[in-house]
Amino acid sequence: MNNNFLQPFLYKDKAMFLAYDHGFEHGPKDLIGKSINPEFILDLAVKGEYTGIILQKGIAEKYYIGTKYQKNVPLILKLNGKTNIPQISDPYSSINCSVEYAKKLGAKAVGYTIYLGSKCEEKMFADFGKIQEQAHQLKMAAIAWIYPRGSAVENENSPEITAYAARIGLELGADMIKIKYCGSEETFRKAVQSAGKTKVILSGGPKVEDEEILKRIESVIKAGATGVAVGRNVFQHQDPLAMTEKIKKIIFD
Amino acid sequence: MNNNFLQPFLYKDKAMFLAYDHGFEHGPKDLIGKSINPEFILDLAVKGEYTGIILQKGIAEKYYIGTKYQKNVPLILKLNGKTNIPQISDPYSSINCSVEYAKKLGAKAVGYTIYLGSKCEEKMFADFGKIQEQAHQLKMAAIAWIYPRGSAVENENSPEITAYAARIGLELGADMIKIKYCGSEETFRKAVQSAGKTKVILSGGPKVEDEEILKRIESVIKAGATGVAVGRNVFQHQDPLAMTEKIKKIIFD
Amino acid sequence: MNNNFLQPFLYKDKAMFLAYDHGFEHGPKDLIGKSINPEFILDLAVKGEYTGIILQKGIAEKYYIGTKYQKNVPLILKLNGKTNIPQISDPYSSINCSVEYAKKLGAKAVGYTIYLGSKCEEKMFADFGKIQEQAHQLKMAAIAWIYPRGSAVENENSPEITAYAARIGLELGADMIKIKYCGSEETFRKAVQSAGKTKVILSGGPKVEDEEILKRIESVIKAGATGVAVGRNVFQHQDPLAMTEKIKKIIFD
Amino acid sequence: MNNNFLQPFLYKDKAMFLAYDHGFEHGPKDLIGKSINPEFILDLAVKGEYTGIILQKGIAEKYYIGTKYQKNVPLILKLNGKTNIPQISDPYSSINCSVEYAKKLGAKAVGYTIYLGSKCEEKMFADFGKIQEQAHQLKMAAIAWIYPRGSAVENENSPEITAYAARIGLELGADMIKIKYCGSEETFRKAVQSAGKTKVILSGGPKVEDEEILKRIESVIKAGATGVAVGRNVFQHQDPLAMTEKIKKIIFD
Amino acid sequence: MNNNFLQPFLYKDKAMFLAYDHGFEHGPKDLIGKSINPEFILDLAVKGEYTGIILQKGIAEKYYIGTKYQKNVPLILKLNGKTNIPQISDPYSSINCSVEYAKKLGAKAVGYTIYLGSKCEEKMFADFGKIQEQAHQLKMAAIAWIYPRGSAVENENSPEITAYAARIGLELGADMIKIKYCGSEETFRKAVQSAGKTKVILSGGPKVEDEEILKRIESVIKAGATGVAVGRNVFQHQDPLAMTEKIKKIIFD
Repeated sequence: MNNNFLQPFLYKDKAMFLAYDHGFEHGPKDLIGKSINPEFILDLAVKGEYTGIILQKGIAEKYYIGTKYQKNVPLILKLNGKTNIPQISDPYSSINCSVEYAKKLGAKAVGYTIYLGSKCEEKMFADFGKIQEQAHQLKMAAIAWIYPRGSAVENENSPEITAYAARIGLELGADMIKIKYCGSEETFRKAVQSAGKTKVILSGGPKVEDEEILKRIESVIKAGATGVAVGRNVFQHQDPLAMTEKIKKIIFD
Repeated sequence: MNNNFLQPFLYKDKAMFLAYDHGFEHGPKDLIGKSINPEFILDLAVKGEYTGIILQKGIAEKYYIGTKYQKNVPLILKLNGKTNIPQISDPYSSINCSVEYAKKLGAKAVGYTIYLGSKCEEKMFADFGKIQEQAHQLKMAAIAWIYPRGSAVENENSPEITAYAARIGLELGADMIKIKYCGSEETFRKAVQSAGKTKVILSGGPKVEDEEILKRIESVIKAGATGVAVGRNVFQHQDPLAMTEKIKKIIFD
Repeated sequence: MNNNFLQPFLYKDKAMFLAYDHGFEHGPKDLIGKSINPEFILDLAVKGEYTGIILQKGIAEKYYIGTKYQKNVPLILKLNGKTNIPQISDPYSSINCSVEYAKKLGAKAVGYTIYLGSKCEEKMFADFGKIQEQAHQLKMAAIAWIYPRGSAVENENSPEITAYAARIGLELGADMIKIKYCGSEETFRKAVQSAGKTKVILSGGPKVEDEEILKRIESVIKAGATGVAVGRNVFQHQDPLAMTEKIKKIIFD
Repeated sequence: MNNNFLQPFLYKDKAMFLAYDHGFEHGPKDLIGKSINPEFILDLAVKGEYTGIILQKGIAEKYYIGTKYQKNVPLILKLNGKTNIPQISDPYSSINCSVEYAKKLGAKAVGYTIYLGSKCEEKMFADFGKIQEQAHQLKMAAIAWIYPRGSAVENENSPEITAYAARIGLELGADMIKIKYCGSEETFRKAVQSAGKTKVILSGGPKVEDEEILKRIESVIKAGATGVAVGRNVFQHQDPLAMTEKIKKIIFD
Repeated sequence: MNNNFLQPFLYKDKAMFLAYDHGFEHGPKDLIGKSINPEFILDLAVKGEYTGIILQKGIAEKYYIGTKYQKNVPLILKLNGKTNIPQISDPYSSINCSVEYAKKLGAKAVGYTIYLGSKCEEKMFADFGKIQEQAHQLKMAAIAWIYPRGSAVENENSPEITAYAARIGLELGADMIKIKYCGSEETFRKAVQSAGKTKVILSGGPKVEDEEILKRIESVIKAGATGVAVGRNVFQHQDPLAMTEKIKKIIFD
């Protein structure tokens, strides 16, 4: 089963994704200015030549499927989500879209967040296990967001737990994982190595200084990562397209 | 999938719904005078030219399907409900009617309440996810009641959480959401904007002074809302039809 | 769906049921004298011309289906039950018989207990929701026992909560509900009114003085109830048949 | 449905079963001497002319189905089990074998333990409810082990709770129940009477003096029980076959 | 059903498995040096003539199925797993791969870990019950890892609990079990005896001195075990192949 389900999302074997699930995870306060409008984001994805766009079900259904965007940027449908409102130390994020429905909405990949180390990790391993099988059955890639979190997780960004997160992605059969930065090219390389044939992309995270995010992207690319999924660092930027160009250069040149 | 599942409920692209699920949520004490009788309410819906009536399964089955009412006012079947008796800080409201059965009862839309921010929100996101897919499969609209509630929710009516509620409706693929008033036209506009192509209706809420409810309706309509779902402000009114006329004017004129 | 699933259980539009699920709910200590023997009860049901007999699965399977009793008194199969042993403040009663199996056992109606106000009420609303749909699919009536109970229920027999119980029966689509006495004809009338087209029968409850139970039955019939489900007040009586005759008179004359 | 699913297990309308699930419930420490070997037990069952053997899935699969034993002693497959290790005051015992698989393993009956009065009794009533229906569908008997246990059970062997256990067996539709001794012929007779047409067998329990167990068996047979399921009192005995002969005499002569 | 599902894994009726699920259970920190690379391990399995390789789904999918390895070493697919991050005293390990998918990935056996004595053991007994039936249906062996663990387990490696673990494997229908060393040949013999026709292999455990692990293997083979599943004692060794040869001699010569 040497598949190439990720093929639609790769250019020169690299990936640059535009993530837009912040409205679910953090609420509209993240979606400053024009970014509240999904069409602004989809336009950006096309103009910026992103190799993938990450959306939740509702936005895919109302703004993507059957539109011009569908032809110009492939879709990763995020299947689970939670808000940041309830105070839960060991989180779980439930499935709100079936793999089959994601297919109907034009997705070529599905995404699912696993909170590694949460007391509820068992539910997420089980969920992702089923999703991965259904996705491959339907010829779609299965992408795991793997974020260490829980009452037993002291440092969510330590090199060791990041490498563990990466390995879990491989062991669970993710085609690609989205993980956080763990401090340096060297430590990220260990994570990439732990992931083996599972491709690794950096989670862009909250808005930081341009230099900082560009440095991180450069660092993970050197470490062997396939690319990055950016969101806030682009659409909260005063010039998203210019920022996109800078990122694109690092990844593809 | 640019559907128009909401079409049966719109007049001049606006909606005026009569909600009648208070017997479930609060008990008969809300149903003062004639309003204890579903036929009084259904008559009001027809005479008042409401563009939709909201009922729980049992009332739809015994008073709506196969009657004259079915021809005159389209049905939104509320699929879940809970009483106000148990003291639960992070509520969940379970499904008591299947989407398929709602269809048999003549419904053209289904409704489901999500308590945003509840520690049980995960169950409601998952439930609504399935309902939404089944509803669209059966060519019915999926409408979400989204009410912030839970031990971590300090102000259930703050502009920020209201906008978040609206956004969750969009992200989850609701065709329409029913949310509460958050204080002003300006703040409600932000919620409407957050909901994007998901239509927004105001939840009428408990009986207030005529002026107050009319002012709120005017305000949300100006803010871009599609309409309102009223209940107690009409059927607890001494002249429900007169009150209906006033609301109708604001919405459709 | 103007069904008459209750038709087999009505005589002059009234109902007199013999309940016999006490062995499950309270144990054999309730089944004094000959009443420990299901055949004694079934004989009583026939001789007393009860319009329905309420049994759990096992007794229906071993004493009713395929016997003479089946021809002479229609069966309401009680689908859930619990013992009075575990100390649980917010009770739930689980399903031990499927609707389909009830049908095989000759039942023309199914019964299910909902503990209104229990923190577990959500599970019972969901259970009953499915049962009701399956029952109607199989042309059987769905009867709900609705008893307020739980840590938040201060007075299980208050008029207000009784009316709420009755309303929940209507909202959930029960064809008939079995509720407790709430003190007077007047308050019970409010419950009957809240139930609308859902028929109401009185739960006989524990053995009381003859006068008392007869007075209650008279009172609920005047209040618009359809009838009564008696058990202990008859089979714990020294002359069950004589007692039955007295009740019959009140209900049908 | 006047079935005779128990027919294969009865001789002169009586039953003598050899129980061998102690390896699951208590561990090998109960299986002293040769009794650690399932073949020793199966030989004993055949030589002793037991009318049934009680095994868990694994032993049935590896030592019974397709062997000479299958022809000589009918199998009751025990579907659930738990160890005595975790300290749980209100126990639940989960299903590890499906009814269908039991059938494939040659079983003519299935067994299931219910801990009556446990806070988890609801799960066991629901489990057994499904098992009983599946078993009857496949023409197999459904046998319930009913043992009072839980934080609210003060005396697991009181006559009252034993009669309650027996009654629950009848109400749930068990063809036969296995219950514990409750002190005397007289009190056990009340349990047998409570079980009605559900046949009752005594659970042999831990090893006691020969006289004691023989006296108990005699007592329950006089009380109307159908027989006994023995295990430790036979295979922990220095002469299991001689002990078997003594029991056999009491039951069948 | 005298199957030989284990046949592909046996040589001279003995087994030597290479386990490689540590990346899931403990993280990359266990995978020192080249062992981070699955291909290094698979090469070792082939060169070392292991009679089975134990992998989680993702590694099987990306490194085994359709490769040269598939022809040279049979696969045991481990269906469940958990990390060592959350602090849970009574653990449960959830299923992340279906039996059917394991079959597609070329597995000839499936593995599942049961934490015996955990308050969650009921879930694992139920899970394994279903897995075992599905595996046999698909002509695959079902192998249980049985590790005593939980708040009530004082000594995870006592002879008594080890024998109990072994017995549970037999009772549940495992074709083979993987258990830990319990101190001596004599005590391990008791475990092997308790397992009856269920074959027993030793879990190699953490890296110890060469002499120690070799002594243990010799001891369990003498005690009647079928073999061993080694991991860290080989791939954390400076010369994995040499170590393999030493183990091989003990098992097969």
